[in-house]
Amino acid sequence: MKNLKQYFLLRDDITYLNFGSFGACVKPVFERYQQFQLELEQEPVDFITNTGLKYLAQSRQALGKYVNCDKDDLVFVVNPSYAVNTVSRAIGLKEGDEVLSTNIEYGACDKTWEHVCRNGGARFIRQPITLPLESKEQFVADFFKGLSPKTKLVFISHITSTTGLRLPVEEICAIAKEKGLLTFVDGAHAPGQIPVDLNNSNFDFYTGACHKWMMTPKGSSFLYVKKELQPLDPLVVSWGFNALFPTASAFLDHHQMNGTRDYSAFLTIPTAINFMEQHNWWQVAADCRKVVQDNAPVICKLLGTQLLAPLQEDFILQLLSVPVKTAQPEKLHDHLRDEYSIQIPVMRQDDKVYLRYSINAFNEQGDLDKLFDALKDIKTKTGLIA
Amino acid sequence: MKNLKQYFLLRDDITYLNFGSFGACVKPVFERYQQFQLELEQEPVDFITNTGLKYLAQSRQALGKYVNCDKDDLVFVVNPSYAVNTVSRAIGLKEGDEVLSTNIEYGACDKTWEHVCRNGGARFIRQPITLPLESKEQFVADFFKGLSPKTKLVFISHITSTTGLRLPVEEICAIAKEKGLLTFVDGAHAPGQIPVDLNNSNFDFYTGACHKWMMTPKGSSFLYVKKELQPLDPLVVSWGFNALFPTASAFLDHHQMNGTRDYSAFLTIPTAINFMEQHNWWQVAADCRKVVQDNAPVICKLLGTQLLAPLQEDFILQLLSVPVKTAQPEKLHDHLRDEYSIQIPVMRQDDKVYLRYSINAFNEQGDLDKLFDALKDIKTKTGLIA
Repeated sequence: MKNLKQYFLLRDDITYLNFGSFGACVKPVFERYQQFQLELEQEPVDFITNTGLKYLAQSRQALGKYVNCDKDDLVFVVNPSYAVNTVSRAIGLKEGDEVLSTNIEYGACDKTWEHVCRNGGARFIRQPITLPLESKEQFVADFFKGLSPKTKLVFISHITSTTGLRLPVEEICAIAKEKGLLTFVDGAHAPGQIPVDLNNSNFDFYTGACHKWMMTPKGSSFLYVKKELQPLDPLVVSWGFNALFPTASAFLDHHQMNGTRDYSAFLTIPTAINFMEQHNWWQVAADCRKVVQDNAPVICKLLGTQLLAPLQEDFILQLLSVPVKTAQPEKLHDHLRDEYSIQIPVMRQDDKVYLRYSINAFNEQGDLDKLFDALKDIKTKTGLIA
Repeated sequence: MKNLKQYFLLRDDITYLNFGSFGACVKPVFERYQQFQLELEQEPVDFITNTGLKYLAQSRQALGKYVNCDKDDLVFVVNPSYAVNTVSRAIGLKEGDEVLSTNIEYGACDKTWEHVCRNGGARFIRQPITLPLESKEQFVADFFKGLSPKTKLVFISHITSTTGLRLPVEEICAIAKEKGLLTFVDGAHAPGQIPVDLNNSNFDFYTGACHKWMMTPKGSSFLYVKKELQPLDPLVVSWGFNALFPTASAFLDHHQMNGTRDYSAFLTIPTAINFMEQHNWWQVAADCRKVVQDNAPVICKLLGTQLLAPLQEDFILQLLSVPVKTAQPEKLHDHLRDEYSIQIPVMRQDDKVYLRYSINAFNEQGDLDKLFDALKDIKTKTGLIA
């Protein structure tokens, strides 16, 4: 695997095994970001209301090509949480409605759905999924045990956060559409890690982060909405809502104008896509997946645990999460960071705790070897891992 | 008046008379902004979840001192629109409730209140204000003609946008509190232009932009909420909502965590306050107000119009807006920009059109002279101004 660490801004003295949480920006993208910011400050009115809008359209064009959809079916949002807050409030949940999801979704999304459902008298169903996953079929069967005549929408991660699992979203959403349900896929971890093809999907709503696996600056994400569900009420009402001079797309008008902000991060997406193309990124991703897989048995053995799914690309990509027996997950994280200079998340989900490594182009085998040595050391010297 | 243009990033070839819309960042603040962004990218996890949170607290501390309130009664928001969207949805408007406001508020806020009121069966009252203003007393009398037993909240600009008028918000809110109403002041144009004193106010909710008159990068604003009204439901539910490890302030937990974003703009506020202190900014502001006032009779004569209020600091500060007779406001703006390289807004409010100049430390008398020459030229050569 070719190491591309030179393109990243990450500190040399940290073994960075948590690309997953917040991504990491590559230098050419970061430089472009700060150039846009300077251009903005040189003539704020022209940038925010004129030139920048053209750049936004170019950026949606590039992203639309990348995730295969019409550029006008995409709006930029700061992060997937914003998108989930937008959609959950806009779909008009009513007394008795149910949103069917899993018990392995991102915690902030659970909180959003629970809050919005509670306010509307609806229910958020965190359908239990049997772990380890055995097969797509088993997952699909588990999931639809939560279906009821009241189910209105299905919400599911493309790749889960805490457990790092690729879920069979195509299969789930195809069945959901047959049953007449709305479908919403949380692709926070997908674009840049695997190809995303929205035009040929059964996804009504899809959100993806560009600031993770596409390596743009933080605060650059998108919400895709199928044309027949547009326009959707915006989370932040601003000038574009019932606009004095509407464009051809009320969807864009409603969601793109959002008050004064520095939207430079959105504009770096074409630069990031170019960077990935120049560096043959699907090969880089495949190389990273191989590192993930090669090391999976080692960490399982070391922690006396088992994988959360079969070691296949249907389930496991550039994130590997395994259960870890610790009573103090936050302390274990801090200990790894402070004593070994290893940045790796130790995350809770309900009563479980998981250790998750991410592999991207700046990582090398030595990073995981350092992790394994540290874990052995911690097991021997402390009570942090049982 | 000492010219401080050297500290700004604005292009030399544009006569920039629209500081008001989006502010303009000063160099030391912009440099600090981009340094924070680099620091973020060097260790995203540590920055976003640890170091950056300490910087956020320092920034709230500095801002709290600047606007005189407890730092924990402030949360950073991207812009005042976000704050208005947050508060309007969180106060639980019910069937029949009324929000009393004026007909000279910021259009995006009108749209927000109208949308939220409509959804809740409430009414947004744009109480007509007689222009030109004659006195504070006349304004207060006009305003409270819109009061009814159904009024729940008063929403009013500290300094209006389109008409550039300082409103008697202290007087309005003191009366409103006597009547048992909630009060919400939109201070988008206030901090940095005039001292703001939240502890000694009758404001229950207050939003201010730092990216305008405090000269921080775009996307840095705040929402103040009186302690007894905290916590408030957040617009974006995220990890801080019913947090696993709550801090001492549910208000901060609810509103500060907002999904992954680059919050560097918020962190530059102490640098901006230092810059203003070093440059004796209240004197700079006073000098700018003098330029505004000295030129007011000139533009009125030139456009055959009258001021919107008495030429006193109770009403007119660093923004001067006058009615302009044009059937094509957007074209007039573009013409001034394209043919004369002058950036100045020509804005609609209902059936009126206003031309507004802003004066800040980078402006000089010559800028207004250029504007006056251009307006004379346009009057003579085109039909854009009647």
